[in-house]
Formats: sequence, structure tokens, C-alpha cells
Amino acid sequence: MGIKIHGSPMSTATLRAVAAAHEKELDFEFVTIDMKSGAHKQEPFISLNPFGQVPALEDGDVKLFESRAITKYIAYNYESKGTPLVYNKGKEMADLAVWMEVEAHQFDPVASKLAWELVYKSMFGMQTDNAVVEENEAKLVKILDVYEARLSKSKYLAGDSFTLADLHHLPTLHYVLGTKEKKLFDERPHVSAWSKDILARPSWGKSLALQKQT
Amino acid sequence: MGIKIHGSPMSTATLRAVAAAHEKELDFEFVTIDMKSGAHKQEPFISLNPFGQVPALEDGDVKLFESRAITKYIAYNYESKGTPLVYNKGKEMADLAVWMEVEAHQFDPVASKLAWELVYKSMFGMQTDNAVVEENEAKLVKILDVYEARLSKSKYLAGDSFTLADLHHLPTLHYVLGTKEKKLFDERPHVSAWSKDILARPSWGKSLALQKQT
Repeated sequence: MGIKIHGSPMSTATLRAVAAAHEKELDFEFVTIDMKSGAHKQEPFISLNPFGQVPALEDGDVKLFESRAITKYIAYNYESKGTPLVYNKGKEMADLAVWMEVEAHQFDPVASKLAWELVYKSMFGMQTDNAVVEENEAKLVKILDVYEARLSKSKYLAGDSFTLADLHHLPTLHYVLGTKEKKLFDERPHVSAWSKDILARPSWGKSLALQKQT
Repeated sequence: MGIKIHGSPMSTATLRAVAAAHEKELDFEFVTIDMKSGAHKQEPFISLNPFGQVPALEDGDVKLFESRAITKYIAYNYESKGTPLVYNKGKEMADLAVWMEVEAHQFDPVASKLAWELVYKSMFGMQTDNAVVEENEAKLVKILDVYEARLSKSKYLAGDSFTLADLHHLPTLHYVLGTKEKKLFDERPHVSAWSKDILARPSWGKSLALQKQT
């Protein structure tokens, strides 16, 4: 039984898992979950994720959910294939843990809100809430200042190699860079170079291509 | 140079890191950061965490922040000491990753909002927002149903041993169980037994004792 990733190409969390699978050069089947019809809240999907959220992964007997748990499973379980995406010891492993948490608890909440207000809402014909945009733009400025300082010391967030700490940013980074907030990235040379570098990875191009197929 | 944990005994994130250090029987110094005076937003603390949030850890040359990165560092770096808090391979490692993400992205946002509305706000003489309580109570019901199903299959969230996936819940679990939401836990036998079991761990008692010293 091969690897299956169940999700939606419009979901940032799904694209995060798919990008990790491409980095590891895994042969996997993508199973589209039709979120418009609510398939993620029904069987058979909720047997894969009881919280009814995409993505979920099946790999033989292993069934798991939460995008960042899926990327970790892929990175550690297929360590010998494709790009090494994790560090296994010492200070680099500690830095990897820190910057993975920074993505999840600092960057993602802010970038997701901006993507929702400035990208998804207009797709759905909804009105942008400018107060929410301003509040999150102010937060993003502070976060990117910390990133600029960090990326002036190492090429990637967890050290000199591309890891899950960088990869986890890809989907929200992609969306936010398509909005007026791009200027905040352009103003910071290290952040700008890092964004361009990671978004140019073939794994990301292959992940985004899913949106054209459906 | 010994291990130092910088933080505030009133911070749930700080107590999470302290509980992990006690589980590993580490000899560490607790450095109180006076959040009332804004010490967490100033030097020397912001050199430890540029986001200005507690806790931060120093262990020789290693300096790190984000409570769940600190617990992971402690668990992996001191693997041979105290309680084993992680799994290193196979399906159990994958389950550990899933349930650590569930705590961070499902349980914690809801439990933290309930703790804020029902515990911290009254400490600060602020008014509880009942609409926020109701919204999060409804979310907690769904989350605890998933936990009940999971804990009917294994004693702890990631398998049959206590791990970081359980430990990370301790501080918010402690606060929420001190509110009227306790009934939601009492109604679910496996959730109720799990909560009592993990809150009775000596590491948690020692962590909470910090609040009496200050």
C-alpha cells in the first residue's frame, strides 16, 4: 500500500505536507477532499482526522493528521531519501525546534489572518476588515525584524541548510507575498533573499501545480 | 555554567518548561522575570527571546525560547535522565508528533481563552466576556470527545507512556479544571482519569510550588 495524502489544493496546511513529500522525493497519491461539499467533516475522512481538518496521511498502517506532524513523520521516516529536512543533534536540533515553534506560534497566526483578509475573502466575495489587516501588519513588522536579524546570521532559520523550519512557512509566505504586504519583505534584504530562495524550490513549484490540476 | 530557566510562575508557558525540567530531574536555577515591570520586553531578556515572551532557557552555550522547543530540547538532550518523555521511532513517534500538534493547535487555543476569561480576568479585576466563554466551551466539548475516544485506546495521548504530548497540557489543564468547565472533564471517564493522573505527577506539584515562593 502506497503513501496517500488526503487534502485540498486550496488549503495551506495541505500544501505544507505536499511540499515535504516532494522534498523527500516520495511517490505518493494525492486524494482530493471536496471541502465545498463538507467531505472533511464526514466519513470516511473523519476516521483519518477526528477534528475534520485537512490534510491527513496514510502510509501503510500509519495514519496521521496535523500538517506539521505529517512533515515530521515524512522527514524522520524517510531520512535517507531526498533533502535532509531535520537536524538530529546538538545546538542545530535545538535551533530547529525553536524556529519550528516560531513559525507555528508567531508567523503563522499573523500570516494566516492576512491571507484570509487579503486573499481568501476576495475569492469568496467577502469584504476585507481593514482593522484586522492593520493590527496584523503591525505584528508582521515586528516578526520580520526578528527574522531579518536571524537570517543575517544564518542562511536558513535553523542553520545553514533548508529544513522544516523554513518549509513550514511556504504556503502562507506564498499568499502574503501576493498582497500589498510584500513591501515589508522587500524592505528587509535577508528576509527578501530567504523568501525568494525557498519559494523557488522545485518542491514548492510542484506543490502549487496541484491547484492547476483541479 | 548550569541550566537556567527564565520566566514567570504565573505564565502557563513557563510552567510547561519547568515541568519538563522536573520530569528529567534536572538541577536548574529559576530566574524570575518581572512581567509587571515589563522586564520581558527589555534587555537583558530580549537577547534571550527577541519576541519578548517567557520562558527562555540557558544551558551553557545553548540559549533557546518557545516553551515547547525548550521541553523538546530537555527531553532529547537529557534522554538518559529522569522520565523518558519522547519516542524515537515508528508509529509511536508519529503519534507523539500528532498529539503534540493537537495540544498546540486544538487544545491550547481554546483552553487558553477559557483560562483568560474565567481565571486571569478576575485576577486583574476585568469582566468575563460570556460570549467568548460559550464559543470556546462549545469547541472544548468537541475536542474532549476526540480525547475521550483516543484515551479509551491508550492510557496516554501518544501511547502507553506519559510523554511531552501529555505534559504540554498541564498548565492550561490545571487552570481550566479550576473553573465551571471541570464538568466537561468529569463527564468523560477516560479524560477525567487522564487529567487526574497527569496533574498528580510530582513534577507538576513542584512546578506549581513556584507560585508560592514568589
